[in-house]
Amino acid sequence: MNAGRYSYLTHLECARCGRRHEADRYVGLCEECTSPLVARYDLENLRAEVSREELAGRRWELWRYHELLPVAAPEAEQKLGEVVTPMLRMRRYADQLGLEELWVKDESATPTSTFKARGAAVGVSRAAELGVRRIAMPTNGNAGAAWASYAARAGLSALIVMPADAPMITRAECLSAGAELYLVDGVISDAGAMVAQAVADGDWVDVATLKEPNRIEGKKTMGLEIVEQLGWTLPDVVVYPTGGGVGLIGIHKAIAELLELGWVQGEMPRFVAVQSDGCAPIVRAFERQEATSTFFADSRTVAFGINVPKPLGDFMVLDTLYSTKGTAVAVSDDALLSELRVLGASEGLFVCPEGAAAMVAVRQLCSDGWIASHERVVVLNTGAGIKYPECVNTDLPVLDAGAALPIAEAR
Amino acid sequence: MNAGRYSYLTHLECARCGRRHEADRYVGLCEECTSPLVARYDLENLRAEVSREELAGRRWELWRYHELLPVAAPEAEQKLGEVVTPMLRMRRYADQLGLEELWVKDESATPTSTFKARGAAVGVSRAAELGVRRIAMPTNGNAGAAWASYAARAGLSALIVMPADAPMITRAECLSAGAELYLVDGVISDAGAMVAQAVADGDWVDVATLKEPNRIEGKKTMGLEIVEQLGWTLPDVVVYPTGGGVGLIGIHKAIAELLELGWVQGEMPRFVAVQSDGCAPIVRAFERQEATSTFFADSRTVAFGINVPKPLGDFMVLDTLYSTKGTAVAVSDDALLSELRVLGASEGLFVCPEGAAAMVAVRQLCSDGWIASHERVVVLNTGAGIKYPECVNTDLPVLDAGAALPIAEAR
Repeated sequence: MNAGRYSYLTHLECARCGRRHEADRYVGLCEECTSPLVARYDLENLRAEVSREELAGRRWELWRYHELLPVAAPEAEQKLGEVVTPMLRMRRYADQLGLEELWVKDESATPTSTFKARGAAVGVSRAAELGVRRIAMPTNGNAGAAWASYAARAGLSALIVMPADAPMITRAECLSAGAELYLVDGVISDAGAMVAQAVADGDWVDVATLKEPNRIEGKKTMGLEIVEQLGWTLPDVVVYPTGGGVGLIGIHKAIAELLELGWVQGEMPRFVAVQSDGCAPIVRAFERQEATSTFFADSRTVAFGINVPKPLGDFMVLDTLYSTKGTAVAVSDDALLSELRVLGASEGLFVCPEGAAAMVAVRQLCSDGWIASHERVVVLNTGAGIKYPECVNTDLPVLDAGAALPIAEAR
Repeated sequence: MNAGRYSYLTHLECARCGRRHEADRYVGLCEECTSPLVARYDLENLRAEVSREELAGRRWELWRYHELLPVAAPEAEQKLGEVVTPMLRMRRYADQLGLEELWVKDESATPTSTFKARGAAVGVSRAAELGVRRIAMPTNGNAGAAWASYAARAGLSALIVMPADAPMITRAECLSAGAELYLVDGVISDAGAMVAQAVADGDWVDVATLKEPNRIEGKKTMGLEIVEQLGWTLPDVVVYPTGGGVGLIGIHKAIAELLELGWVQGEMPRFVAVQSDGCAPIVRAFERQEATSTFFADSRTVAFGINVPKPLGDFMVLDTLYSTKGTAVAVSDDALLSELRVLGASEGLFVCPEGAAAMVAVRQLCSDGWIASHERVVVLNTGAGIKYPECVNTDLPVLDAGAALPIAEAR
């Protein structure tokens, strides 16, 4: 009876208390306990009515998985070019680590050049479809850029608050998209409090991380794509640079849904949450085997996207690590800046510092045997290196026109 | 008898004197007159042996057009994720111009986030396939970043020389990819002379614009994609921000080949070359109906990618404009910086200044009637706006943490 449904979304479920909410009106947080909501689908009927082979003829964009996304109709999809991002096999670099099969899922190709576009594409599309006209959010930069862009595409107003030391490029993106942008002398939690106050005083909808349910669904598409790009098979290990952790939660949810659908068989991969040792609340909690994290004071790292001192979804991230026999690793800024150059010179891929952090973790986990050489590893590079040009020292001497190049000396 | 050939390349032909060169060894310029070489294919047999329907099942990347590319074998393709880039319909913005059907071919999604990746992907792959191990080139930034990245991917050495005032981000990209990078106090022609000297003194191969034939072939894929993405039909007008002009030459070549193959029917589109009024050699030559351009002294524009005072392929660009009943338009930096913001706020797309220049040209050509309201227009956005963050003024006041957002005043 559900044949031909575009989305198989049924309801939203509270991640803490389990309360069910209807999905056909906009709701951000659980109305019982104000916890994050999770989208649920009619997987039983989807399994009966659609086979994964039907995807073959569809566009190579994240919307190809529309049955597993919350947007109810194709005309509500706001598009800025959400291509299925490349899975790049790293052979030369993997050889250095003694690893047979290493893949980078490279999110550079997304609109606004980070994985944040996925959450924004699905989040804005669904919010607009349900009648939302004005969105507000705090950001460390990239999420604000993505949501501001999709808001403009959808004709919505956007209010963005970011720390003054967030990446400068993301300011330009928010302003280019016509968003109302404010800078704060503080961290993302300060920005979040200021947004919450504006939301309380006005008619904005707060779309901060996990304050609405559709960002997870957008990020889930990374997991759907990884599995399809591996020929509907599973990796052994997924390594994810973890700030808010929504991508990790989303990839895990994607694979759980695909397993339940029977679109893939096998073992759930082990998940690795990678943080900076300048901001490692998940790693600390994991080491103590705790269910939630503690605020990480005075956090600081060049990998700005993972500078999240107390992720709202910490309990979901930690649960994923425990249930998949995963782990959590903190790396130093020095190590990640160095790894960024090693990977770039080996493979030509300029990753973001968060992606470089994940590479350091892979190196460490291979070295200490947690990852075995025959295992198939997928690392998320969550954004383009060009959004963080300060990660490479570009201070070079300037030659006069006509000068001979000092090539011999440089060798 | 050619059935199953991966590439239908037959030979290289001099664009000036017509001399034929064999394609199975590396050759950069015509050995008769040192003019640019153009790749030629066995279109007659390709037409008989392959139908465009065979492409349907192939990967959504530029290599799907391998019969029309020079790389002889799939294992020689160096890949960093050359997705077919999005064609984005601009409805809200087109309404402002009184235009029914406006598409932006958005090159942001390419590796290194500009269209230069196409030339580099095909150019490096083919050079490496023919035994080249060391490449050298002058650049205004983005081409160097792209070629350095693909060189690293292929395991080649790269020597790059760029003006000291080229976009800072592209320095970081070259260095990240392990290239030998030099900065010069001068323009791209100064860099070119220094590269030529290094090539004469050493064992580098000069892969500067039009000094090797495969960059055109890579850029040709923009044209192949546009036609396929329009359902194997042709646009009426193609608007292209023109520096060296290789992209324009390539798109025209692509459509000519598709017409000859019978994969598309109809009229060749009219081509529009867009330049900055601070560097407009093609526009000046077009106004005088000349066959070649004159060096444009003291050139200067924020659209750094089109700051090319004397393009080597000027005669090919001008010939395309004349033969297609096209035109050439110069726009001011002020106009393009303003248009960049208008487009961003209307559609959420942050274009590069070169793309913004093309948008200004569309607005002018619609306004003066050269483009009719019912015509189907494709504009090339040659790169991501984030590579030029200085195009948006991001100087904002910084609020104290906890301050109320001054929303009322901002309205």
